[in-house]
Amino acid sequence: MKLKHLILDVDGVLTTGQFLYTEEGKFAKVFGPHDNDGIKIISKFMKVHVITADKRGFGITKKRIDDMKLPLDLVPEADRKGWLEKNFNLKECAFMGDSLHDAEIFPSMGYSIAPASAFYPALEAADFVTKHRAGEGAVGEACLHIIKKFFSK
Amino acid sequence: MKLKHLILDVDGVLTTGQFLYTEEGKFAKVFGPHDNDGIKIISKFMKVHVITADKRGFGITKKRIDDMKLPLDLVPEADRKGWLEKNFNLKECAFMGDSLHDAEIFPSMGYSIAPASAFYPALEAADFVTKHRAGEGAVGEACLHIIKKFFSK
Amino acid sequence: MKLKHLILDVDGVLTTGQFLYTEEGKFAKVFGPHDNDGIKIISKFMKVHVITADKRGFGITKKRIDDMKLPLDLVPEADRKGWLEKNFNLKECAFMGDSLHDAEIFPSMGYSIAPASAFYPALEAADFVTKHRAGEGAVGEACLHIIKKFFSK
Amino acid sequence: MKLKHLILDVDGVLTTGQFLYTEEGKFAKVFGPHDNDGIKIISKFMKVHVITADKRGFGITKKRIDDMKLPLDLVPEADRKGWLEKNFNLKECAFMGDSLHDAEIFPSMGYSIAPASAFYPALEAADFVTKHRAGEGAVGEACLHIIKKFFSK
Repeated sequence: MKLKHLILDVDGVLTTGQFLYTEEGKFAKVFGPHDNDGIKIISKFMKVHVITADKRGFGITKKRIDDMKLPLDLVPEADRKGWLEKNFNLKECAFMGDSLHDAEIFPSMGYSIAPASAFYPALEAADFVTKHRAGEGAVGEACLHIIKKFFSK
Repeated sequence: MKLKHLILDVDGVLTTGQFLYTEEGKFAKVFGPHDNDGIKIISKFMKVHVITADKRGFGITKKRIDDMKLPLDLVPEADRKGWLEKNFNLKECAFMGDSLHDAEIFPSMGYSIAPASAFYPALEAADFVTKHRAGEGAVGEACLHIIKKFFSK
Repeated sequence: MKLKHLILDVDGVLTTGQFLYTEEGKFAKVFGPHDNDGIKIISKFMKVHVITADKRGFGITKKRIDDMKLPLDLVPEADRKGWLEKNFNLKECAFMGDSLHDAEIFPSMGYSIAPASAFYPALEAADFVTKHRAGEGAVGEACLHIIKKFFSK
Repeated sequence: MKLKHLILDVDGVLTTGQFLYTEEGKFAKVFGPHDNDGIKIISKFMKVHVITADKRGFGITKKRIDDMKLPLDLVPEADRKGWLEKNFNLKECAFMGDSLHDAEIFPSMGYSIAPASAFYPALEAADFVTKHRAGEGAVGEACLHIIKKFFSK
């Protein structure tokens, strides 16, 4: 089945997964280079969707994903699989995630990718692990990898 | 003896151990992914307690640990062992720490864990060293490890 | 042909490539040590120019590059090669970059350098890859390397 | 000759060497764990002095070093050797630094130490290189190393 959608988690995929806490709470997240370059190129082949489970840091995430002009949905991790099934044919989806919950969803997806820095159960469960760590080009590398593997004649 | 309590240090365990200083003083600490996931799972098996010796950064720490809905105590490092003995049966405790002082307490605990990024005396003294670094999933990994080692039939 | 110009990209070369996002947008970039030392030394041999494609973070970049007393130009990545050709004889230029777009320009330059942390296509295309990562001394190392390779008798 | 003084550089020794830049300029530096623990222990054997060449970030540095209750001097890197000679018998000094300028001073000192993350000329010139990186316990490790090497019977 042809891959039509690229679904990206935010924390630990488009960011290092870390957040700066001040006395006021979550202050900042760390986004990295090359991901936007890869997303622009893969957008000619697939639709890119961004999902996050981080309610407390949603304002930070939304600001960045809006700046990247990508669609963003807040989906609690417990509902992630159900939400994806309702909105997509999972076998048409490449999914990039880094957490324990993501690892459980990986086998249902058309293709699954984890950044080098992912939590170890996600590293073990993913179809492909990038060489770059999250926040250091992992999504950019994943995009180039998908194009080479699925969209090159 | 059965492990009943998981005691977590904050700096260098739930954070990278680093702190951002501005001209005003300690501004932020760097917390990471996967730790909260692991803590939620292990809470079905053990009580989780958080202790810190960082007075100057206590406001930052308190904000994050409150957000995680965990109990937090400020215990000076010199008093740590005495405080633990007064409040717990040490042999029922798994303890995760990263410092020289933690390394000295490790042999008294039921089980001791250091993150991959811990100070080298803690790496040498711990019963288990995680593959993940602190602020990159070390506590999450420790939780899954304890469940597998002590609570799987 | 003699190298006369050193052209430095900013993000991922003079910084780690990462940016801290808050709810207000891009808040900070992470610059590192040793680069300024190297630039001061190489300035006796070559003219140093700094270019960036980051419009959204330009205020941050400009503040730092002004503090370093270096000339800075905002050049969109798509126009980078054309802009460089208009302003320089490319064969007289050493160019340090880290991105996919930089990798495409590398073969046209007199000499090309990527930091150890560069995006993998840039690592493959560069004449020289530093041992230090960007934001950890990569530009400083590149400067010493160029002097040793091209300006030592 | 007996070592009497431990002289510590700040940036890249007590910090990661990195600084967060905002549109307003230098905003924050990243200090790390274990260094304060080591310094407290070595203070029973040697006098600890802190020097920095960073004028622009001096307010940040001063706040942190004051919090650590250590003496701090602002010494331009070009004057560093002369200043040290005027204030100390260099052969009685252990010196920890990370830069090109520090590497040039190393041979004159009683003992020289570089963190694992130091600029490569400092790694090559130092008597001892720590396993820990700066901002991740390098100074703490250096203190324990000096005590073991010079003050254990």
